[in-house]
Amino acid sequence: MAQKPSIPKGTRDFSPTEVAKRNYIIQAIKRHFEKHGFQPIETPSFENSETLLGKYGDEGDRLIFKILNSGDFISKVDDVTYSSKNSASLAPIISEKALRYDLTVPFARYVVMHQNEIDFPFKRYQIQPVWRADRPQKGRFREFYQCDADVVGANSLLQEVEFVQLYDAVFTDLGLKGTTIKINNRKILSGIAEVIGAKHLLIDFTVALDKLDKIGEEKVKAEMLEKGISESAIIKAQPLFSMSGSASEQIDELKTLLSESEIGLQGVGDLEEIITTIEAVGLQSANLQLDVTLARGLNYYTGAIFEVAAPEGVSMGSIGGGGRYDDLTGIFGLKDVSGVGISFGLDRIYLVLEELNLFPDTLDTYLDVLCLNFGKREGLAGLQLVSSLRKLGLRADLYPTDTKVQKQFKYADKRGVPYVILLGEQELTEGNFVAKNMKTGEQKAYKLDEAEQFVESVKAAL
Amino acid sequence: MAQKPSIPKGTRDFSPTEVAKRNYIIQAIKRHFEKHGFQPIETPSFENSETLLGKYGDEGDRLIFKILNSGDFISKVDDVTYSSKNSASLAPIISEKALRYDLTVPFARYVVMHQNEIDFPFKRYQIQPVWRADRPQKGRFREFYQCDADVVGANSLLQEVEFVQLYDAVFTDLGLKGTTIKINNRKILSGIAEVIGAKHLLIDFTVALDKLDKIGEEKVKAEMLEKGISESAIIKAQPLFSMSGSASEQIDELKTLLSESEIGLQGVGDLEEIITTIEAVGLQSANLQLDVTLARGLNYYTGAIFEVAAPEGVSMGSIGGGGRYDDLTGIFGLKDVSGVGISFGLDRIYLVLEELNLFPDTLDTYLDVLCLNFGKREGLAGLQLVSSLRKLGLRADLYPTDTKVQKQFKYADKRGVPYVILLGEQELTEGNFVAKNMKTGEQKAYKLDEAEQFVESVKAAL
Repeated sequence: MAQKPSIPKGTRDFSPTEVAKRNYIIQAIKRHFEKHGFQPIETPSFENSETLLGKYGDEGDRLIFKILNSGDFISKVDDVTYSSKNSASLAPIISEKALRYDLTVPFARYVVMHQNEIDFPFKRYQIQPVWRADRPQKGRFREFYQCDADVVGANSLLQEVEFVQLYDAVFTDLGLKGTTIKINNRKILSGIAEVIGAKHLLIDFTVALDKLDKIGEEKVKAEMLEKGISESAIIKAQPLFSMSGSASEQIDELKTLLSESEIGLQGVGDLEEIITTIEAVGLQSANLQLDVTLARGLNYYTGAIFEVAAPEGVSMGSIGGGGRYDDLTGIFGLKDVSGVGISFGLDRIYLVLEELNLFPDTLDTYLDVLCLNFGKREGLAGLQLVSSLRKLGLRADLYPTDTKVQKQFKYADKRGVPYVILLGEQELTEGNFVAKNMKTGEQKAYKLDEAEQFVESVKAAL
Repeated sequence: MAQKPSIPKGTRDFSPTEVAKRNYIIQAIKRHFEKHGFQPIETPSFENSETLLGKYGDEGDRLIFKILNSGDFISKVDDVTYSSKNSASLAPIISEKALRYDLTVPFARYVVMHQNEIDFPFKRYQIQPVWRADRPQKGRFREFYQCDADVVGANSLLQEVEFVQLYDAVFTDLGLKGTTIKINNRKILSGIAEVIGAKHLLIDFTVALDKLDKIGEEKVKAEMLEKGISESAIIKAQPLFSMSGSASEQIDELKTLLSESEIGLQGVGDLEEIITTIEAVGLQSANLQLDVTLARGLNYYTGAIFEVAAPEGVSMGSIGGGGRYDDLTGIFGLKDVSGVGISFGLDRIYLVLEELNLFPDTLDTYLDVLCLNFGKREGLAGLQLVSSLRKLGLRADLYPTDTKVQKQFKYADKRGVPYVILLGEQELTEGNFVAKNMKTGEQKAYKLDEAEQFVESVKAAL
């Protein structure tokens, strides 16, 4: 009756090596989140369906994993509905809970539910898995982690500055130098649509513009035409396609272009303040780039928009993104709370670090010392030694049986253990143990009751 | 259209303070898992239904959360099945995936799927949430973490010894002294059933015996009688009800009682070896107790059985448990792999530490320094200072707006920040900043370009 086991498509097992590499990234993100004053929260893996449904558009609703009610779920379906045999009508009756689709909506729900315990401005971070019933493909999974930091209840543009610094700090720490942090402002996009006379087609306009670096200028223009944006409007928008130069040059150009649009000028002003402030504090290794074609989920953001690209030469979509959204908590009844936040793309950062060989070598060495086992009496002495080594801070293990020494060495090798301890009959008689450095082959004897000396030399070498 | 938000029953939000306390426990467990040579793996939150169903008994199957298939799930149901309108027949057709119920079955599945990459003995740990559609009650949730360590592919009793040491190390580290680690052996239970002539009623016998400390001797005997165990068998088992004295005294008593049972004597022998070895290496703060009434999921364990009780005076069920199981991976087609493992009960440990006031005081201080904001120019200088402090290793923040100083101090207070920095017009002119110790009220001025000195004094005080 034995089954050949498998796992659902789009999900993954993580081996000890993979866990080590993922944790290396997560720990760096977490460290800098905390250095920047963010506090962690956690929310449940599943929410009531009504909390999630309708928040991500029709496509999002389809991708949400729904949980079947427990017990006799079908008895709750009335006969008329049942006779229709229609999935869309049945689903809300037989499923009342759904798996988290992102961390933003649960965060908004958290802020509203806990508003009386929270001290605003509230800076929270959250690193948890989310689930989407998307078609799996390279780099896209049905279960994946999001790493989000958001501030709610603060309108100051200093928050935007801080998020740019945060990206810079994390990627510098991971050794990933030369990332590009692109920045834009939704108000600029609105302003452009306004001055070219396509205000009513803002979404179509920006959806097309957003594709500029993927499909090129001609195809973008074709798409705009097709969506009903006039030829003359597209000609007016021409400066967008040839924007270049430094951020301050681009800002000057935008000021001219948008001189007739109040909201557009507001957006340029905001952007200018953010960029000037960042120039004043400096970045460690990232480049800041104004990109007026950046749109990212436009329905959602109301101010700044961020996106991070991997260093040149690495072909990879964005490794992070975010922006400012007003009134996120409004959907749950708490009005006028402005928020701004960013997200790190764990899986993609992993692939980039792998490609550039930036993971530290010894990341997956989980054991410092393996004590070989030479028999009952020796094994007991080994166990006592290993217990002392653990108390002194080492990760140490005794081979569980007195099998062939060769086999024990092979195990040590495979686990990548830097030190092997030999404690046989002779050593036991002499009250010694011998430590072998597996890299150099060097052996050294220590007194059994002077394990501290060995531990010090190991710690010095690690 | 605003909804009043809520979360599904049996689930929880965790605030920054709660996350800090949970992580404090998880980190201690993780640290000692790694010191004892265990390596982390992670498995997906949901598995194919056939991986989980049938592994936990009928009750378990009912408590597994099933995920509704995506898309037009109901169209796959044939008309005959559909017309029955029966939940049990419909569920397997409209749901092919289910949420993890524990970490043991996914681990067995992992070992079988990855057997060619694994170096045996394989010591793995896994700290992830599991989900059960249980009736929620105090201390019982529908989503909760399990913290498991298991070794597979090693028969040596040294593994059992190590798990007792591991419990001792973790609870000692958490300051939870005086826990009782109860130990028994399934073979002893089999032996007893054999010698009293109730071998065919082993499960009934042990299920009743397991309740001894909850319902008392008389009721246990009544239940045994009711289950068909004879009066004379119960009389023969009488020594079990009055077992006392040291472990070695109890072992002597068991040897007499079980002198006719080969399997029983084997169990006593195993137990004796484990106990003797533990006595030789010593425990730091836990007590080891032989408890022949300990049964815990008897269908499952084949050798040692463990359970940990909180220190006396704390009323709480077991805070950990485990044992040896042979052939765990057999269900997935890999025979003859013996395993032994233990689990830590995170939620209960949390409650015990809370009750005994054992959490460190400053656990939820997420910020070391808050720099107040006195205006545009001062704020920019503050941002530069805060950036330096972060690079020097502090968790530092600038208040985002130049609102009333009183309000900013109140925020600092609520977040429990130990140091507040004052950097107003005067300080800026003088090239200084003033650091205020929020506990003592003491204030000290530093040069803006000598932030290191301040950081050193903060680190020394933390």
